Amino acid sequence: MREIKGNVIVGQSGGPTAVINSSLAGVYKTARDRGAKKVYGMLHGVQGLLEERVVDLADHITNELDIELLKRTPSSYLGSCRYKLPEIFEDQEVYKKIFSILEKLEIEYFFYIGGNDSMDTIKKLSDYSILNGSKIRFIGVPKTIDNDLAATDHTPGYGSAAKYIGSITKEVIRDGLVYDQQNVTLLEIMGRNAGWLTGAAALAKCEDCEGPDMIFLPEITFDVDDFMRRVAKLHERKKSVVVAISEGVKTADGRYVCELTDNIDYVDAFGHKQLTGTARFLAEKISKEVGCKTRAIEFNSLQRCASHIVSRVDITEAFQVGGAAVKAAFEGETGKMIILKRVSDDPYICVTDLYDIHKVANVEKKVPREWINEAGDYVTEEFVNYVKPLIQAELTPIMVDGLPRHLYYTDKVK
Amino acid sequence: MREIKGNVIVGQSGGPTAVINSSLAGVYKTARDRGAKKVYGMLHGVQGLLEERVVDLADHITNELDIELLKRTPSSYLGSCRYKLPEIFEDQEVYKKIFSILEKLEIEYFFYIGGNDSMDTIKKLSDYSILNGSKIRFIGVPKTIDNDLAATDHTPGYGSAAKYIGSITKEVIRDGLVYDQQNVTLLEIMGRNAGWLTGAAALAKCEDCEGPDMIFLPEITFDVDDFMRRVAKLHERKKSVVVAISEGVKTADGRYVCELTDNIDYVDAFGHKQLTGTARFLAEKISKEVGCKTRAIEFNSLQRCASHIVSRVDITEAFQVGGAAVKAAFEGETGKMIILKRVSDDPYICVTDLYDIHKVANVEKKVPREWINEAGDYVTEEFVNYVKPLIQAELTPIMVDGLPRHLYYTDKVK
Repeated sequence: MREIKGNVIVGQSGGPTAVINSSLAGVYKTARDRGAKKVYGMLHGVQGLLEERVVDLADHITNELDIELLKRTPSSYLGSCRYKLPEIFEDQEVYKKIFSILEKLEIEYFFYIGGNDSMDTIKKLSDYSILNGSKIRFIGVPKTIDNDLAATDHTPGYGSAAKYIGSITKEVIRDGLVYDQQNVTLLEIMGRNAGWLTGAAALAKCEDCEGPDMIFLPEITFDVDDFMRRVAKLHERKKSVVVAISEGVKTADGRYVCELTDNIDYVDAFGHKQLTGTARFLAEKISKEVGCKTRAIEFNSLQRCASHIVSRVDITEAFQVGGAAVKAAFEGETGKMIILKRVSDDPYICVTDLYDIHKVANVEKKVPREWINEAGDYVTEEFVNYVKPLIQAELTPIMVDGLPRHLYYTDKVK
Repeated sequence: MREIKGNVIVGQSGGPTAVINSSLAGVYKTARDRGAKKVYGMLHGVQGLLEERVVDLADHITNELDIELLKRTPSSYLGSCRYKLPEIFEDQEVYKKIFSILEKLEIEYFFYIGGNDSMDTIKKLSDYSILNGSKIRFIGVPKTIDNDLAATDHTPGYGSAAKYIGSITKEVIRDGLVYDQQNVTLLEIMGRNAGWLTGAAALAKCEDCEGPDMIFLPEITFDVDDFMRRVAKLHERKKSVVVAISEGVKTADGRYVCELTDNIDYVDAFGHKQLTGTARFLAEKISKEVGCKTRAIEFNSLQRCASHIVSRVDITEAFQVGGAAVKAAFEGETGKMIILKRVSDDPYICVTDLYDIHKVANVEKKVPREWINEAGDYVTEEFVNYVKPLIQAELTPIMVDGLPRHLYYTDKVK
């Protein structure tokens, strides 16, 4: 007979990915299969937990089909938050509150699926737990499309975003060749500080496609004049020029390219400047100065929610890291993040491992300089060899009446 | 033994769709199977034909796998053009040139895959042919994502674009719910004069998704103040508001909404004003006046080239109209366009038929007023019932090394 384990709670935090719910499915199914009494979900992460917005997942994920749908559902099923805990020595009130809620729910295992900020949360909660003699175990489950988490070979979520970017870049390149007319297309890709997503546009370069002509990552200082010269030169000899550019490229004086425009700043009600418009700004400039048809295409939010085309490797690994977190916690581990360790590139073999959360948090992993070419306008073969295994194979959406079906959270208990 | 038929030529014209090459495959395969000696392709439509840029398709499409890849390839395999023939009575030089080229190639059957302008080309060429005693047969094969061709129940290309729009609208709606924070998302959808594509956002309203909150088509005069009031009202009671809006909505004074901005006009080198920015303009306005987080998402070119998620009904019909055109021409028809006739909605049954090209050309089919609700901010159930059969089922891309494989045209003969 399987051992009975204590109660589990799981939350999602930070920006979503196309496969973040596969990790939730991995936590839920593994915890249930390994004997957890209850598996709770916190709505909108720690922020919701503080308001005791907690649900018994068994009321919402009721059968195996639900688990399959959950894996294929974009955005965070439980809702997310951007909540940063204070330092323990600064303010213990919030910790007391969290632990009293966890104790009321008789939680023994706590899982948090997220990126750098979420790992910071796991670190602080596990530290507080140890300092106060609590037996609750805390394990972090990595996710982010940005692939900027340290210690892990890559993050679940990145492979699917890369596959999506590679696929639509191929389609857009094909589309740019339709008329017998010169044109320049600029693709604006996510990733403010790290160029992992933008670099994935290089995947489009394959037997049946020449790929983008240039790729600009935020790791390299962007020189607008030099960029214009290179575009003009390409334009001289090519009908259709396609350039992939990160939304986060900055000029030498530290300004984002999208800030160079004279247009009114697009600041939202919270005073956050919206950093879109890099491609649009450059497209307008090329149109005026080079004098050809231009297009600016923002790959937008779909990069983090295109569940209709995910990588099977990615969605499987996302599930695995969820499962590995449960296994580790049930075996007594705490204060750790699950990482992915690549054993081999070809054949691709990757295993999960544990990593001390104190060594992880708040370090942003960027594309190494040697994976960018000398001219700073493309990624190298090493980069492509690194990404390619992560985009392999598909997990078909479950189509109902012509559209992908999702599992959505509702207050109603099934 | 099958009858030997004369030479065939086929071209593609106007904006591409995700399935325009399926019609090319339908023409090629049917012509070959029905005994055509040669099947030529004109590169970049009539414009390329005038420069004798013509290829023997058997040199490029060499086996059955090529045909399957061609069906799944976005953009126009042969390249496209936007070329309008003069009226016959105005200038016969260009006609003489075209016919002399066709005679040199011993063409007996001429197929043109396109929208309204392309059907105008077929009309003029078949008229000229009759006036000059030529035996060449001219048949038009319909395509356009805009679905604005008259006479046919719908156009191949529309169903796949509608399926793509419905699918990503669902994903974006899910994405908008991730944070526990109020927000408004504006989806900018193609279709300058006809709202068929924008209306397809209503498909997202289904068992697992509440769909967009409002949908604005270009058929209805757009009132910015009224729009702002409605958004503010929805914002009062809903966490996440999603609005689909056509790039072509106009105010009562006839101006496009994207022209209302103070920003510098985005005019390309040919003086064509780029009509994007409707969603962005409104998002900025909402951000300032309603005071909440907003997002503007342009569904962009992917609407016409997302071959990675096509409707099987659509891609099959696209192939069928190509095949039906060849059958009709081989049976002696000329000056006709193939149309789709819906026999029944449920079960969906649709057949091909022939329609006099003179009755087709240059009439733009819009969404009927009675398929838009009284308030002018959503489509009716009739609209949805019309579209739904067209998005059913999928044709999986042929994936190679993690990405969809395409068949691309190259000068090199295989």
